[in-house]
Amino acid sequence: MDKIKDLNDQESSRPFIGTTYSEAIFKNATHLVGFCFDGTTSYRPGARFGPDAIKDASFGLETYSPYLDRDIEDYNIIDTGNLPIYPSKWKITNDYFHANTKELDLKKDKIKFLVMGGEHSISYGPMRLALDNYEDMVLLHFDAHTDLRDGYLEEKYSHASIMRRMWDHMSDKNELIQYGVRSGTKEEFEFMKKHNTLYTSLDSLCDKIASIDAKRPIYMTLDLDFFDPAFMPGTGTPEAGGENFHSFIRIIKILKEKNFIGADIVELAPMIDSTGNSNAFASKIVRETLLAMQD
Amino acid sequence: MDKIKDLNDQESSRPFIGTTYSEAIFKNATHLVGFCFDGTTSYRPGARFGPDAIKDASFGLETYSPYLDRDIEDYNIIDTGNLPIYPSKWKITNDYFHANTKELDLKKDKIKFLVMGGEHSISYGPMRLALDNYEDMVLLHFDAHTDLRDGYLEEKYSHASIMRRMWDHMSDKNELIQYGVRSGTKEEFEFMKKHNTLYTSLDSLCDKIASIDAKRPIYMTLDLDFFDPAFMPGTGTPEAGGENFHSFIRIIKILKEKNFIGADIVELAPMIDSTGNSNAFASKIVRETLLAMQD
Amino acid sequence: MDKIKDLNDQESSRPFIGTTYSEAIFKNATHLVGFCFDGTTSYRPGARFGPDAIKDASFGLETYSPYLDRDIEDYNIIDTGNLPIYPSKWKITNDYFHANTKELDLKKDKIKFLVMGGEHSISYGPMRLALDNYEDMVLLHFDAHTDLRDGYLEEKYSHASIMRRMWDHMSDKNELIQYGVRSGTKEEFEFMKKHNTLYTSLDSLCDKIASIDAKRPIYMTLDLDFFDPAFMPGTGTPEAGGENFHSFIRIIKILKEKNFIGADIVELAPMIDSTGNSNAFASKIVRETLLAMQD
Amino acid sequence: MDKIKDLNDQESSRPFIGTTYSEAIFKNATHLVGFCFDGTTSYRPGARFGPDAIKDASFGLETYSPYLDRDIEDYNIIDTGNLPIYPSKWKITNDYFHANTKELDLKKDKIKFLVMGGEHSISYGPMRLALDNYEDMVLLHFDAHTDLRDGYLEEKYSHASIMRRMWDHMSDKNELIQYGVRSGTKEEFEFMKKHNTLYTSLDSLCDKIASIDAKRPIYMTLDLDFFDPAFMPGTGTPEAGGENFHSFIRIIKILKEKNFIGADIVELAPMIDSTGNSNAFASKIVRETLLAMQD
Amino acid sequence: MDKIKDLNDQESSRPFIGTTYSEAIFKNATHLVGFCFDGTTSYRPGARFGPDAIKDASFGLETYSPYLDRDIEDYNIIDTGNLPIYPSKWKITNDYFHANTKELDLKKDKIKFLVMGGEHSISYGPMRLALDNYEDMVLLHFDAHTDLRDGYLEEKYSHASIMRRMWDHMSDKNELIQYGVRSGTKEEFEFMKKHNTLYTSLDSLCDKIASIDAKRPIYMTLDLDFFDPAFMPGTGTPEAGGENFHSFIRIIKILKEKNFIGADIVELAPMIDSTGNSNAFASKIVRETLLAMQD
Amino acid sequence: MDKIKDLNDQESSRPFIGTTYSEAIFKNATHLVGFCFDGTTSYRPGARFGPDAIKDASFGLETYSPYLDRDIEDYNIIDTGNLPIYPSKWKITNDYFHANTKELDLKKDKIKFLVMGGEHSISYGPMRLALDNYEDMVLLHFDAHTDLRDGYLEEKYSHASIMRRMWDHMSDKNELIQYGVRSGTKEEFEFMKKHNTLYTSLDSLCDKIASIDAKRPIYMTLDLDFFDPAFMPGTGTPEAGGENFHSFIRIIKILKEKNFIGADIVELAPMIDSTGNSNAFASKIVRETLLAMQD
Repeated sequence: MDKIKDLNDQESSRPFIGTTYSEAIFKNATHLVGFCFDGTTSYRPGARFGPDAIKDASFGLETYSPYLDRDIEDYNIIDTGNLPIYPSKWKITNDYFHANTKELDLKKDKIKFLVMGGEHSISYGPMRLALDNYEDMVLLHFDAHTDLRDGYLEEKYSHASIMRRMWDHMSDKNELIQYGVRSGTKEEFEFMKKHNTLYTSLDSLCDKIASIDAKRPIYMTLDLDFFDPAFMPGTGTPEAGGENFHSFIRIIKILKEKNFIGADIVELAPMIDSTGNSNAFASKIVRETLLAMQD
Repeated sequence: MDKIKDLNDQESSRPFIGTTYSEAIFKNATHLVGFCFDGTTSYRPGARFGPDAIKDASFGLETYSPYLDRDIEDYNIIDTGNLPIYPSKWKITNDYFHANTKELDLKKDKIKFLVMGGEHSISYGPMRLALDNYEDMVLLHFDAHTDLRDGYLEEKYSHASIMRRMWDHMSDKNELIQYGVRSGTKEEFEFMKKHNTLYTSLDSLCDKIASIDAKRPIYMTLDLDFFDPAFMPGTGTPEAGGENFHSFIRIIKILKEKNFIGADIVELAPMIDSTGNSNAFASKIVRETLLAMQD
Repeated sequence: MDKIKDLNDQESSRPFIGTTYSEAIFKNATHLVGFCFDGTTSYRPGARFGPDAIKDASFGLETYSPYLDRDIEDYNIIDTGNLPIYPSKWKITNDYFHANTKELDLKKDKIKFLVMGGEHSISYGPMRLALDNYEDMVLLHFDAHTDLRDGYLEEKYSHASIMRRMWDHMSDKNELIQYGVRSGTKEEFEFMKKHNTLYTSLDSLCDKIASIDAKRPIYMTLDLDFFDPAFMPGTGTPEAGGENFHSFIRIIKILKEKNFIGADIVELAPMIDSTGNSNAFASKIVRETLLAMQD
Repeated sequence: MDKIKDLNDQESSRPFIGTTYSEAIFKNATHLVGFCFDGTTSYRPGARFGPDAIKDASFGLETYSPYLDRDIEDYNIIDTGNLPIYPSKWKITNDYFHANTKELDLKKDKIKFLVMGGEHSISYGPMRLALDNYEDMVLLHFDAHTDLRDGYLEEKYSHASIMRRMWDHMSDKNELIQYGVRSGTKEEFEFMKKHNTLYTSLDSLCDKIASIDAKRPIYMTLDLDFFDPAFMPGTGTPEAGGENFHSFIRIIKILKEKNFIGADIVELAPMIDSTGNSNAFASKIVRETLLAMQD
Repeated sequence: MDKIKDLNDQESSRPFIGTTYSEAIFKNATHLVGFCFDGTTSYRPGARFGPDAIKDASFGLETYSPYLDRDIEDYNIIDTGNLPIYPSKWKITNDYFHANTKELDLKKDKIKFLVMGGEHSISYGPMRLALDNYEDMVLLHFDAHTDLRDGYLEEKYSHASIMRRMWDHMSDKNELIQYGVRSGTKEEFEFMKKHNTLYTSLDSLCDKIASIDAKRPIYMTLDLDFFDPAFMPGTGTPEAGGENFHSFIRIIKILKEKNFIGADIVELAPMIDSTGNSNAFASKIVRETLLAMQD
Repeated sequence: MDKIKDLNDQESSRPFIGTTYSEAIFKNATHLVGFCFDGTTSYRPGARFGPDAIKDASFGLETYSPYLDRDIEDYNIIDTGNLPIYPSKWKITNDYFHANTKELDLKKDKIKFLVMGGEHSISYGPMRLALDNYEDMVLLHFDAHTDLRDGYLEEKYSHASIMRRMWDHMSDKNELIQYGVRSGTKEEFEFMKKHNTLYTSLDSLCDKIASIDAKRPIYMTLDLDFFDPAFMPGTGTPEAGGENFHSFIRIIKILKEKNFIGADIVELAPMIDSTGNSNAFASKIVRETLLAMQD
């Protein structure tokens, strides 16, 4: 195995259950990274505590998934810890991610990534990294919110505009597939309608993903408010009428058969849910996603 | 526009998002009123804090509804603040509501009302106001509980008897349609059976509402414990086995096409749910209801 | 009526709504027993407070069930209080239960039991009692977890191994039916597959139970984490993707028509859910189970 | 021992630790009564749950007090359960208390009372009972608030006016001693100044109580918001700058040497404090008060 | 009275009890301003919700202070609402404050300010405003933390460095008085020692303040974690060993006799304390501060 | 430096701030050990989560103590992680501790220990280890409870009897000093009186400790319920009337000048206090204790 580069300069923390802790990025491995930034959050902050909460709660989980019949311990998954964070500095934190990953060759080195947020604006780096390595990438966006504003509260790279920022980088070679979206301005909904990006039934979504060529790279950005607040109470901007765990499992079983090359999972805000159940929920979503990515 | 009468004598508060604050009642408008009474609550009190919690949480909502494709800001909706309340005095608070609304001509002046509780006993005033103005009104009652007791704990106008009180005022010209009810005494369930008021499947309910003449006035009294406690944890008497947001959206889309003249939404008890998610849920229900009422 | 034996040596507590309090075991009656042990819990403890929380929350319930059209007050149901508990001593507490019940003749004396936990390891005593009295018993196991480990953390009778312990006692005359299970090691899932004990759809489960001979005794052990954490947040090891109340009602309606001779309901951990809604949920499950057991 | 009269018509509940449960009032005994009314509460309700919370939490207490070197189990203390309550009906509940106690002869029958609220308005009945039996009674009022309004929100017998109501019944033979008061209108503070009822240092208060003739009857009405919210978070109207437990112990040690004939302890609102520590605190205050009353 | 300038462009909100709401700044008045920024918070965020929580909780307070024998309603105090906020943009929000206040002449126009945070970095604007108007100002700094770092996590104007920033602007004409400080690096404590700014006993502090010339302008910046977490649990960085309410009252009574020209009160984080008591505490501190400022 | 022996077989976790993580025990170092057992807890469990909560909360602390003018980073302090735990097996866990430490020569190898609980019964191992190495040791016991029962609920080594167990091992060469104790049976208080172990004022305690010969070894066992629940809400058996942080600092400053050779700090139950402030409090106590132990 070949160590490439240091991503992390934080104190070591307890790794996700079944994974190995290392500060370095290795070839032939899936990397789990914590990105604890929530500086542009406009409503209830605290997503910065998401990654540690997910890792802590993972100790109440088994490493085996009966849904995918796979076990974390059977794969080479590395917990690279949390990135260094500067609370009010989106640019510095994002540049850091870029500087430390820009020379990676994900395809050749067989590296996959799962980045845990943090708020949705942190997805920009990982999504760009994926797009830079896979120019024909399909982008799955699961979220309660459109996130298609063209900037928000004087911040161009806001959690509320991050999908618009990605859209700017995408071309005809890519495809954006949105599902779960149930909140936005009228203009944002018109944007989705115009570009045909929004799927409004689970059946049509699953058919669509199933139809993607098995070799075509797929990246998933998952804002946990995609799920109904009943199942994921611990998120900053709860939006009634969301999806449940079974919908996710139906999707992830399809992704298991595809070329699933990377993902980010964002917007767990642990302080909001004193039961700790949101942490356990997110932790299980992370486990399933890590397992679905494996070849 | 024509100002009719002062309803409110409280300090001004932050209005529901997208609405205009005014203490007066205007013609050609929908009025949103807070009624902070919970004095007859027999189990867990606190619904008195419902209206302010709904208004506060509305700032995490968009004004646009993708379900109804309507925007709060496109309509004349007035937040008239909260009514003055005397904690242990149902009669005084209810008489106040009556005295200040009895001369309104809802039909002629094109006035609609959405009253936010408070406990379910507060619905008496708004339901009577609607009935006095629309003698052929259909009354929709969505609730976990029958509320058909003939008085409760020495209080004739209790939260547990309020539908029985309304029944006393209704005639052959009216219709009572109940849905979601899953708790009551054997006698109460027999009352519903005898009078054929209870619908037990969403399909049959929706068919029934769809069949109502488009001009016939419809009023909705919604006790938020109609919803499963998973979705609405913050209510005084949680009752497992309730409805979800999707059921409500299916109903409200039908009401949008009807002569939906008024409503009340009651029994949010914010102190019970420390996540604040119940407030956000109720707030979204209020938004959809306000929008469905518009012509 | 005939008093047989003292089971309880605790201070009297408020009985479950609609039941009668007595420390003795009577013939021709259903007994509700609290078993407040959680000493082998490996993750979040607190199930010891389950029985009292269920009894307290029952005062927010009606005694009448519209699902089963039966009323607690119409039957002879006795709340025998809580068993004496020694926090770290599984054997002492279990021996106590055994010593006080081993001479009962459940069939002849028409005695039924519903034991409230406590953690799942407390089910051992009641399950053994049922098996000793009914050699052809069918065992229903509803749970998120397999509980089929062969010992756990140096404890043979752990919450995580209790179904394996029962399996050791069962013979060809018995049948184990598992449903809701979604967490375990690969080996545990293979065990279930090998022995064909796991049902994976509600339809197939209901068909199976419906097919059981009406005279054959059925016992149900219900770990409340069977339900999705959205509906039952207050449990030690929440596991996403669980069942809802409607599934349970569908099952219990079938059991009402069978020879349903006993049950235990475990793993409510009240401290975890500050809304108190989990207590109300569990309380309703207890009411329905007590009513379904009646002849 | 001689049973006099039934006060209670509620379901039996778990008695305070070390006491005996009985629905009747006996001679030569101290009675602990729950009065679960909070109907006039103007801010945060929930004091109705106080008595049960105090009794439940008492199981985390020892029956022995090292402060007073006395043990609950060494005295004849009877838990008479909770009074029947009608949520919005102050008069009915208060009349009930009066009707069931008016023929008692506290002095002759050697009966003492400790009534647990509920909100402060419930103290009216017990204070009147004491005054009717002891015409030269000294009234100790420990509270954060003056409670001297002449009626509040259309309710003459409000929690905010209850001391004014008692003042109306008192004569030159009585004395009102107030301590801990730190909130009220300017008029209320002027009332106290005019009548010299307020003590502003613990030293002067203790000197005053110590100077009371050992035979003169003393009654204490204790609103738990007397204590700083740091020590008693679970109360409806928290007021910074309150007393601590040590102040109370200093006072109660003096009362132990006096003719301490009755008391009420009100305004514990358990739902507000999810730690449960307020319940434990109130429970200890009840233990000390019961013990100080003993001869 | 003379309206000078609009400071606020937010939706109207419920004003602090006893004050008048206006978006403009008037002469001869004290202004209460909400500054909802917490973008540089390095540990637990949420101080952005402080101002609204303080205003909401003020409705549980009397307008009269028995400590200062003054009543809010007797003075001209204006609630100018909350400033517009951009979550991750310290500079924009601070520049906005500066731009809208730089032309004020506080002395001549008899304007005083109380700004509610928000995190401690928001104090920069108000402190600068005070210093620009009063060149001989004494700066009182009450806090658990030194806040004397020379920048923190790439942010020069961080909550952790804000007192250092002010120090840079201060001259021999000013004086910095720090009290309550109990956390910092060794270097920060040495800085305080070198410059003799830290007072370590309440007596010496009170003597010092009492000795200030009655005409010399005094500004107070109060980080609420100055108080012990027992009294103020709802703050981001709790630090044991803090002050209580009585210490504050002793100080504020001295300030009442001085030329107390402005203040800010920061770091209430309401989401952390589900009892709501921290909000009530902060609200009372605001009332006392407003009253002490009056002439 | 010389590595002696493995104590820990758990997954690595985030070390206490300023310390170094290692699974081994080194000479010339202070070791911080987590002992996550709470199996004999009779009331509210959850102390098992104490060590991780203390380590997590330490990241909100500075490494420098202004009270002792020492910095964690200036000393050789090693976080050896958490011991392996078997939930219901006191003997196994305690034997493990003993087996792995019995051959240490604390004096010669200059090893000190701070063990974090867990419930108070875990202190047995560390106290024995200290006594075995220092036969003239003074034992400081700071606690709300006597813990002098001779066994409890069938468990000889219960949290409620652990000081009695130690007493059995102590001889005339040792001394037991108890402070803060305010709850127990009459017999336990008589035991303390008979053996003169209880100090009832801080002054007399401090005088006593100050009088101990500077070379005589001192061990401290600190049950965090020693502190008032206002300051440490997150503990299983809260007992009003406790000490505050300032008392502790006064004691620890004296210990700094003594031969302070070891300590344990137990009974933090993080689930009880949703503010997280108890964790921060305990973390600061650990920091001060570690620093006071250094030479």
